[in-house]
Amino acid sequence: MKKLADSTCVACSKSAKTLSSDEISVLMLEINGWALISDSGIQKLKRVFKVKNYIEAVALTHKIADLAETADHHPKIILEYGAVTIIWWSHNIQGLHKNDFIMADKTSQLSV
Amino acid sequence: MKKLADSTCVACSKSAKTLSSDEISVLMLEINGWALISDSGIQKLKRVFKVKNYIEAVALTHKIADLAETADHHPKIILEYGAVTIIWWSHNIQGLHKNDFIMADKTSQLSV
Repeated sequence: MKKLADSTCVACSKSAKTLSSDEISVLMLEINGWALISDSGIQKLKRVFKVKNYIEAVALTHKIADLAETADHHPKIILEYGAVTIIWWSHNIQGLHKNDFIMADKTSQLSV
Repeated sequence: MKKLADSTCVACSKSAKTLSSDEISVLMLEINGWALISDSGIQKLKRVFKVKNYIEAVALTHKIADLAETADHHPKIILEYGAVTIIWWSHNIQGLHKNDFIMADKTSQLSV
């Protein structure tokens, strides 16, 4: 089966629909280590990557930012000593699109 | 009067005391735009810097990270499209030290 990380994040219009609960449940199985969270009623994907120190956290942040710019899809990144937290969701539709799962999977590959 | 940003952030031992409320009140007057927040009972300094886009947010994050590494004092940085949020506190003493005000003032100069 084609991995999510091998897919391309495509532009998501404001008229796109958020994923259904069933669709989310299926896709969650493909992104190991990620949590489904609700932030003020908006569903998002969150993962904390532990790193050794601040320099590594900065380096990982930079990699993720490059990935985000390339895809024109931008996560919230929380950078701190020893950890980088990433939160993906689709601003346009105030919820989750398949793009977010693709980007989550691509992010997981970066951190290896 | 010497500005906070012209001072040097010195190593803060675990035996250092957190600032008193009076000391904090005086120092808050010197760091325009910063908010005093309480995060699970730990006092911290927080400021949101608005920027134009993600590239600018990444660039500002990088500048702050460089400043942090130079001073060996590391803030939490929240990077998102159009904004960078910085939170300073002293991990060692679980609260605020004069160092945090110095670093906040230095951060404000970076964003100009």
